[in-house]
Amino acid sequence: MQHIEQYFKSLTESRTPHNLYEPIEYILNQGGKRIRPQLVQLGTTVFGGDLSAAINPAAAFEMLHNFTLIHDDIMDNSSMRRGQETVFKKWNTNIAILSGDALANMAMLELLKTPVSHDVLIELIELLGQTSLEICEGQQLDLDFETNTHVTINQYIGMIRKKTAVLLAGCLKAGALISDASPANLENIYQYGINLGITFQLKDDLFDVYANEQMFGKQLGGDIRSNKKTYLYLLALEKANDNQKEELIRWFSSSDQDDTLKFNAVKTIFDQLNILQHTEAVIEQYISKATECVNNLTVEADKKELLIHFANELAKRNK
Amino acid sequence: MQHIEQYFKSLTESRTPHNLYEPIEYILNQGGKRIRPQLVQLGTTVFGGDLSAAINPAAAFEMLHNFTLIHDDIMDNSSMRRGQETVFKKWNTNIAILSGDALANMAMLELLKTPVSHDVLIELIELLGQTSLEICEGQQLDLDFETNTHVTINQYIGMIRKKTAVLLAGCLKAGALISDASPANLENIYQYGINLGITFQLKDDLFDVYANEQMFGKQLGGDIRSNKKTYLYLLALEKANDNQKEELIRWFSSSDQDDTLKFNAVKTIFDQLNILQHTEAVIEQYISKATECVNNLTVEADKKELLIHFANELAKRNK
Repeated sequence: MQHIEQYFKSLTESRTPHNLYEPIEYILNQGGKRIRPQLVQLGTTVFGGDLSAAINPAAAFEMLHNFTLIHDDIMDNSSMRRGQETVFKKWNTNIAILSGDALANMAMLELLKTPVSHDVLIELIELLGQTSLEICEGQQLDLDFETNTHVTINQYIGMIRKKTAVLLAGCLKAGALISDASPANLENIYQYGINLGITFQLKDDLFDVYANEQMFGKQLGGDIRSNKKTYLYLLALEKANDNQKEELIRWFSSSDQDDTLKFNAVKTIFDQLNILQHTEAVIEQYISKATECVNNLTVEADKKELLIHFANELAKRNK
Repeated sequence: MQHIEQYFKSLTESRTPHNLYEPIEYILNQGGKRIRPQLVQLGTTVFGGDLSAAINPAAAFEMLHNFTLIHDDIMDNSSMRRGQETVFKKWNTNIAILSGDALANMAMLELLKTPVSHDVLIELIELLGQTSLEICEGQQLDLDFETNTHVTINQYIGMIRKKTAVLLAGCLKAGALISDASPANLENIYQYGINLGITFQLKDDLFDVYANEQMFGKQLGGDIRSNKKTYLYLLALEKANDNQKEELIRWFSSSDQDDTLKFNAVKTIFDQLNILQHTEAVIEQYISKATECVNNLTVEADKKELLIHFANELAKRNK
């Protein structure tokens, strides 16, 4: 998406104070996969909308995403992202809080530029505001789970739905909104996005243990090292016998074990319980649900094909 | 403003996760002066708008204000506000970042409920977004000034304009917008609010040194103790002779002096330079400018009287 890269380059030019806008320029021009702008475009294409009008919501949702990254990195004390220092590490916490706040507002102001009727604009704004609020709820649930020893699989899915899936769904719906999609189509494309988003996160959880390390491009086992309660861990707890359960809980209740020893021990239990196969089966279910949503759309077959292709590519991705 | 207190009580009821919404409920129900809701009402009254429609923008702008307080308190490491612990002290920094983010979104969603045409709604949303962005810029300038040894009075006024005045002006303009005020009236009420807001902050700066401590209700000299470059300090630097300047800079470059000794020494210099009288004269100028804006409005005389009365009360306030 060449367009958006150029768009972001000029967005913060000559704005002051520099300490507020430099971090924003920095994070917006780091690249990343740009999945959210792609999804706005995809939603627009599927419903035959004006792709040139999609640039504003595409930029706005990508800005919203980057605002959440700036603040999440403070909360998670993450020092690196996309191979570069995070904003709060490169500058400081105060600047990261404030430039995140500013970026969230810029996203809203960007969305207001979308060349659509005021009625559609109001719906876009409500979508962005509601999406952003749900992402906050999802991040809070994620923080809560760190100290909660009784997280269920359903609660976990509810958390990633809010933390990850609503944003992908919101992007698709934004594209559909600017293309005057019907209420039923809006609902189906949104649910397609939710199922896609959950798939996306479950794949991420899988990669931490089962990726091809060379293709993945980073070290495996980060979630296990930081005792993160991923889908794999919660599923394993559910399927484990008493001994395996005790062992898992022991590994996940301390941080000062040998990393390789811990990773191998946990992976051994996961393997014994067929966690890879079970998770892949669950991913298939979410892909099926996504496909069902696509089938319910009243659009041309080739447009449906685009959405199904996108979902399958996501299911097959290896990094 | 009884209405808004009741309104806030039910706003976060039954929302989850609790760790996200409890801090929001806590800060919204702490009271405070509610100047911003009052200004939305005032703007509505002056232009003969529907006061029952003002509740949503009144709540939204008060929520925006409280979002900035939650985040500012983290940045300024402030432990008390309105006689109670700040959110980040009572909970923690992560929860304060996230509940502030959520509250900012809730403000936008609250504004969307305003029962006005979509055209007016878009203008309200742009006003809220633009105001919020400028407040971020003002807060960043304030942080920058802490380490900048060459802040001019003009730069200081520019900072408080963004950090404090645009929000008061925005509240008045929101009330005017929902009352279908003309473009010229919108501009004049906004500029009235800017001048009011600058007055408001200059009074705050004065109180730190010259308030009646009993009426003020808190200890004087907080700004001096924390080496804050207030209007008084910058004005004193400008008017000081070489000796006084050197002494001022010495007192403001360290934090481990005796507080009473420091306060008395700085106040002595301020007194020698007639800083109280000069600042009061400048406040009078801003009140005059505010009055001029009121005179330019095309509304009934009794409505103008309301605005002039409000400005004079603000100029006379002693806490």
